Amino acid sequence: MAVDIASNPYKRDFPLLANNPQLKFLDSAATAQRPACVLDAQRVFYETMNANPLRGLYGLSVKATMAIEDARRHVASFIGAPDHRDIVFGRNASEMLNLVALSYGPTAVGEGDEICITIMEHHSNLIPWQQVCRATGAKLVFMRPNEDGVITENEMRTKIGARTRIVSAVHVSNVLGVENDVKLMASIAHENGAVMVVDGAQSVPHLRVDVQDLDCDFFVFSAHKLFGPMGIGVLWGRHDLLDAMPPFLTGGEMIDNVTESGATWAQVPEKFEAGTQDAAGMYALDAAISYVESIGLDAIREREDALVAYAMQRMGELPFIEIIGSGDPRLHHGVISFNVKGIHPHDVSSVLDIDDVAIRAGHHCAQPLLAWLGVESSCRASVAFYNDSSDIDAMIEGLEKVWSMFNGE
Amino acid sequence: MAVDIASNPYKRDFPLLANNPQLKFLDSAATAQRPACVLDAQRVFYETMNANPLRGLYGLSVKATMAIEDARRHVASFIGAPDHRDIVFGRNASEMLNLVALSYGPTAVGEGDEICITIMEHHSNLIPWQQVCRATGAKLVFMRPNEDGVITENEMRTKIGARTRIVSAVHVSNVLGVENDVKLMASIAHENGAVMVVDGAQSVPHLRVDVQDLDCDFFVFSAHKLFGPMGIGVLWGRHDLLDAMPPFLTGGEMIDNVTESGATWAQVPEKFEAGTQDAAGMYALDAAISYVESIGLDAIREREDALVAYAMQRMGELPFIEIIGSGDPRLHHGVISFNVKGIHPHDVSSVLDIDDVAIRAGHHCAQPLLAWLGVESSCRASVAFYNDSSDIDAMIEGLEKVWSMFNGE
Repeated sequence: MAVDIASNPYKRDFPLLANNPQLKFLDSAATAQRPACVLDAQRVFYETMNANPLRGLYGLSVKATMAIEDARRHVASFIGAPDHRDIVFGRNASEMLNLVALSYGPTAVGEGDEICITIMEHHSNLIPWQQVCRATGAKLVFMRPNEDGVITENEMRTKIGARTRIVSAVHVSNVLGVENDVKLMASIAHENGAVMVVDGAQSVPHLRVDVQDLDCDFFVFSAHKLFGPMGIGVLWGRHDLLDAMPPFLTGGEMIDNVTESGATWAQVPEKFEAGTQDAAGMYALDAAISYVESIGLDAIREREDALVAYAMQRMGELPFIEIIGSGDPRLHHGVISFNVKGIHPHDVSSVLDIDDVAIRAGHHCAQPLLAWLGVESSCRASVAFYNDSSDIDAMIEGLEKVWSMFNGE
Repeated sequence: MAVDIASNPYKRDFPLLANNPQLKFLDSAATAQRPACVLDAQRVFYETMNANPLRGLYGLSVKATMAIEDARRHVASFIGAPDHRDIVFGRNASEMLNLVALSYGPTAVGEGDEICITIMEHHSNLIPWQQVCRATGAKLVFMRPNEDGVITENEMRTKIGARTRIVSAVHVSNVLGVENDVKLMASIAHENGAVMVVDGAQSVPHLRVDVQDLDCDFFVFSAHKLFGPMGIGVLWGRHDLLDAMPPFLTGGEMIDNVTESGATWAQVPEKFEAGTQDAAGMYALDAAISYVESIGLDAIREREDALVAYAMQRMGELPFIEIIGSGDPRLHHGVISFNVKGIHPHDVSSVLDIDDVAIRAGHHCAQPLLAWLGVESSCRASVAFYNDSSDIDAMIEGLEKVWSMFNGE
């Protein structure tokens, strides 16, 4: 193995992990841990530049405004966006997907039109589209994967057609760990005159993303899965689309002019950023991206791939483990969902927790996918580059213990 | 003067102020500074309990979930809410007002109905209602203050009537500093079968608030003006109203059950909290409230009233200063808007900034009020308990300098 997953040069950067060496944190797909440099940045903002951005002309407020613009620039370069002014900040990825669905959706679809998503969407990229369909009379169409979790070109071409106005797909599934070929999906969407929305919440922490290469129209992710703070969601959109869209939430700083009877809107991105923004969070996201870049996404991917391969190899030695999705580790980007035969995932998770192994159990906010897979819930182990093989070994030991406990061995 | 505003026992608690003794921060109405204990709390969350709340069964995630629930309890007791489960968290006060307007509004008003607000609303409590009126055919009616900035009972009874379904008013104006009698407004609203929404963004940091005593139906504020972190808005609502309302944003954790064709919603408050919440921010808000309680709102009010009285007395000695709103300091809760005769507020603010006096200049996100007052923009000085008389003295000195500079004296 080229990558030494037994050694761990990263854990020391993460105070929670460094201070709790007994903890085996295998739930980074829910939220990541944050390195000290990100926590430092958040504090530095509050201690040296705290003021309400945009609103003031004095030094502190100008510093706060610059912090936001610098964060926009860094996010743009990180995901290959051509213009940082097309980066919109919000609360979380869910809010940004709601923004696209509720502001763009009704301008693009009507009775008889179709919105095409995948069956593996997180609820945040499903329910907003159900709401849009209910309001407009459009139809929601689902692309479904093959047994390896892969949505084939044939499936895309079957489901995306002349009636499709919007295609929205998760880049990397938070249950299957599979990467959807959103570049191909975008080209098929565009052939049909539809726009392409990508939910990158699970891809951005693991894969190099270039929105221009993907040729998508909207791309969404959240800071908290990218080792940044909670409370920051990011939307990039094609400028002409953002510019033509009505605003989402309304209030302070998203206006140009307001009278008793109406208002005109500010330019993009402020049009979509009503009220006081979490400038400290944006500043901390900026620091998180710098940290990720200092390690490098290629190194991150290589290490995570090695961790997943090792975990799947060891899980393969346990006959009572059923992997959900592909058996090929190359189709799992940081995420392995599984069940222990006959034992409820909640019980598995609780027993592992006794030995400080943290995995997730439940429906992973993807109930339609689980229903389609024929399971009610599952266990999920997910890794980040700050994991090492001892985390996997502890999980395997824990799973053996679960099996013995519940089978009286 | 009973309060010694020359001494300052609070500044040392605020790192930005303690480290920058030359700074005279008079823009707390835009956003407050945060004490070290709040910044510590945010970091403690990330270093000792960081996980995605609600989603996990392991120890860390349970701790994160408890942090959120404890924050809800503390917020509820702080504003006198009967049940902490009726506290909804969001991004900022603007989002929470959008939530009430867009989720509750359309269920309550139709063609011919009226929504009654005041002319002194922040844009965040104006534009969402304009949008609701546009969508439903309801009419927006404005209550206007007398020359002292006071909305009289007569004005309330003239504007709130049988057609009124919603009354929404700012508790303390961010321009005039005046406190609206929202308790009286609520009783008149209820006499007419309307509900009462209160925007408490500018009241909660300065006045003791008890939502049961006010007898309002919805109450909104933001953490960042209450010495808490950016990125947290708070809504309290009457349970029966929240329970009957449709959700606002949709996605993860706000559902009970999801299928390909639809979803059922979680209970209040989760129904309104889609996606990963800023649990660290909620934990820090909890700490901010503890800090405010350790000083006491009576002591805070007494000190701020003394600061405002001193500032208005000193400003009264400058013949070129025009106070906006009442000349009575008792009608200014922490906020004094003014103009320097013939000099643009932006110029005033920029010149003051040279000497590190930070005030705000502009329309304060309240353009209709300024238009009604006949001014395009104004200067605004606002205080918190961490200010002292030297901040006021520096501003007075700066204003004299502005006057000399622009009048060649």
